[in-house]
Amino acid sequence: MANVLRNSAKFGFSAGVLSQLSIHSRHGRECVSPCFSLQQRNNSTSPKIKVDLDNSTGVAVLRMQSPPVNSLSLDFLTEFCINLEKLEMDKSCRGLIITSTLSKVFSAGLDIMEMYGKSPERCGEFWKAVQEMWLKLYGSNMATIAAINGSSPAGGCLMSIGCDYRIMADNPRYSIGLNETQLGIVAPFWFKDTLVNTVGNRAAELSLELGLLYSAPDALKIGLVDQLVPEDQVLSTAQDTMSKWLAVPDHARQITKSMMRKQTIDKLLSNREADITNFVSFITKDSIQRSLRMYLEMLKSRKA
Amino acid sequence: MANVLRNSAKFGFSAGVLSQLSIHSRHGRECVSPCFSLQQRNNSTSPKIKVDLDNSTGVAVLRMQSPPVNSLSLDFLTEFCINLEKLEMDKSCRGLIITSTLSKVFSAGLDIMEMYGKSPERCGEFWKAVQEMWLKLYGSNMATIAAINGSSPAGGCLMSIGCDYRIMADNPRYSIGLNETQLGIVAPFWFKDTLVNTVGNRAAELSLELGLLYSAPDALKIGLVDQLVPEDQVLSTAQDTMSKWLAVPDHARQITKSMMRKQTIDKLLSNREADITNFVSFITKDSIQRSLRMYLEMLKSRKA
Amino acid sequence: MANVLRNSAKFGFSAGVLSQLSIHSRHGRECVSPCFSLQQRNNSTSPKIKVDLDNSTGVAVLRMQSPPVNSLSLDFLTEFCINLEKLEMDKSCRGLIITSTLSKVFSAGLDIMEMYGKSPERCGEFWKAVQEMWLKLYGSNMATIAAINGSSPAGGCLMSIGCDYRIMADNPRYSIGLNETQLGIVAPFWFKDTLVNTVGNRAAELSLELGLLYSAPDALKIGLVDQLVPEDQVLSTAQDTMSKWLAVPDHARQITKSMMRKQTIDKLLSNREADITNFVSFITKDSIQRSLRMYLEMLKSRKA
Repeated sequence: MANVLRNSAKFGFSAGVLSQLSIHSRHGRECVSPCFSLQQRNNSTSPKIKVDLDNSTGVAVLRMQSPPVNSLSLDFLTEFCINLEKLEMDKSCRGLIITSTLSKVFSAGLDIMEMYGKSPERCGEFWKAVQEMWLKLYGSNMATIAAINGSSPAGGCLMSIGCDYRIMADNPRYSIGLNETQLGIVAPFWFKDTLVNTVGNRAAELSLELGLLYSAPDALKIGLVDQLVPEDQVLSTAQDTMSKWLAVPDHARQITKSMMRKQTIDKLLSNREADITNFVSFITKDSIQRSLRMYLEMLKSRKA
Repeated sequence: MANVLRNSAKFGFSAGVLSQLSIHSRHGRECVSPCFSLQQRNNSTSPKIKVDLDNSTGVAVLRMQSPPVNSLSLDFLTEFCINLEKLEMDKSCRGLIITSTLSKVFSAGLDIMEMYGKSPERCGEFWKAVQEMWLKLYGSNMATIAAINGSSPAGGCLMSIGCDYRIMADNPRYSIGLNETQLGIVAPFWFKDTLVNTVGNRAAELSLELGLLYSAPDALKIGLVDQLVPEDQVLSTAQDTMSKWLAVPDHARQITKSMMRKQTIDKLLSNREADITNFVSFITKDSIQRSLRMYLEMLKSRKA
Repeated sequence: MANVLRNSAKFGFSAGVLSQLSIHSRHGRECVSPCFSLQQRNNSTSPKIKVDLDNSTGVAVLRMQSPPVNSLSLDFLTEFCINLEKLEMDKSCRGLIITSTLSKVFSAGLDIMEMYGKSPERCGEFWKAVQEMWLKLYGSNMATIAAINGSSPAGGCLMSIGCDYRIMADNPRYSIGLNETQLGIVAPFWFKDTLVNTVGNRAAELSLELGLLYSAPDALKIGLVDQLVPEDQVLSTAQDTMSKWLAVPDHARQITKSMMRKQTIDKLLSNREADITNFVSFITKDSIQRSLRMYLEMLKSRKA
């Protein structure tokens, strides 16, 4: 962990939210919005997620295919959870690999449009879906591997650390991290708990207080990802690794996984409503809504 | 921790229990049964453990000398605990070094014969002895050093991480780890807690879910052992290191050790009966007994 | 962490308290008393602490200037806490850098004279001030950086790990650590909790049981400090680093910091009186007072 702060080229702090993206592009990082993302509304009914289950191996590949950046909208999360639930109940499926069909991005995180100008009820519904995604993933009986073939900030990082194992494309332009504080918001306690479980208390503290995004090599150094491979080998390596996970008797692996994660999961389960209330009251504040609007306008102007 | 999974030559997963050993030998690892061990029954009354206390230094060396692999049978554990208790009460003894007289093996872990075809009462008695060994070791007032001069899977690993410091022979053919899941069984919560205390949450999670055995160099990398030295210097280095531990005033060291470990110990103490019940009901299951029989037959056929 | 114990030149254990300092100097470490320090009594009313707040940046630099070794006496701690409180309430101050004006020493820790031959009441008052220093620092709303430009044993180390970030002079003769057990005393639970939060459970266990002092390079290796820089750049690097911390929106950073540290702080808050009682009954013991007197006489004879 030492030196991460000092050497971090990506460590582009700015005085406010507005300069965030420009700083990131200044450093040559891929210009995925680093925390919230703005999805183009196309009202398409085409699925945002594609699942292929190989019955011979028992391994499902879940591909996120919602351009431009696999934003985690309410629709996306609902579709994600339905697919996860189906696989969970399918006895022939023992392993799950999550990846993206998009170039340069795994997932850019929570969809800003779900939080801007929405009713408290809608915001609450959205947040419940975010919780559901994490609960299903972190507590899955399947062996789960994130094949991170692009940048994965904020919600994308949460999805990654919800898996059992993380393989990332060895590309320093891709970044991953829980960078919420950079935008003036706060990762809730269960994001924090999951990160602490993954990289330890001190790396999590630095990471969350500063809202750090780690390049793929730096993410490997602090243990935020487990392995880097060339970009075109991310999925195949995930498949190879999965066969090792599935060589372990399911029952023993599942009980062990539950023993490791149950306490963290139970903490959210017993505080779920309070966590939703907290999120809604925070995100609907005038000051936060103003920040989101400015952020949104900047994203739009950058596209123009 | 990164790369451990990928580069791990020992990472010989197999679809079931039966191919376990052959895979291990395929990779050139010493063929110690990796989790449970089959002790030759010789009904010998010769002691399985030899203790030498040097009154001038206050350091006892406890040698495990139960061929072929220092299996932790009920008899072995009982003898071990009696010796530990004697030393604990002997005011002239301040430090304990645990090592093995056998070639290539520290301890191969719990004796499979104590779990196969035994009555629930006997299984419970056995498990209580396993608990007792760990409670006495992890909470010892003595400074304790494991001089790991051979492979140390499962119960052998538990004994090692129950000490204050671990010095291992620098031989990549020797391995150490809590590999229970590989055999379809589950390390109980206090094995897990001790491992988390030693290597951190994430390394413990990977390690336990996959039932990883680490070569000595890999064990050093994740902090499962503290130091590697040439095989013929393991004991002498342990003696040198012990003199540094004993230079610290006993009282301050003991209070500090208790502060670090009390919570973990209390958790077992207040769940001891439930933990025994869990073990007995699990190990006496038909499916588990079948697995143990197959494993046992394989061990026998390998010897033939 | 591996190898720290073995390679540690500073690892100068001795059978008792008396040889402590001589051993340290034998190894070429700066001869700061490694745990308690003896302050020359000059009854000076000159401030022991100097604070400069730059209103343009919102960054205060707190300089400890109490020769010879910035001992943490009751007067010193009181002045420190008053200054901290003022800055905390000053809305224009967002960041705090703590450093020393003295050559070779950041702070040598708790002042032995506050613990030797004092009434229980006075000892209790002193300990309450030590608690207060840590509570104010570890829970500060300001971004806090320790610019460690010299040795920092015991209480000096506690002050350092109470900050958000640690930059140390890259000088192997400077050491840092919670070395209480070496003197026969015990770091209380909240020292321990803070250390575990910083370097993890196992490094903290080794560190506290052996009372290890780490050279600056070794401290970096285990994560006890975050960064080493040449001695003359410690303060300027702290200033640069602070600007990055202050680029994060205060509110989000503060809530995140509280989320990370609240549990540890609450533990002391709800055990504060018991912790004082413990300290007083321990330090006023005859055996401990005898040790302190011997230690004191040795310090005096060394000066002569």
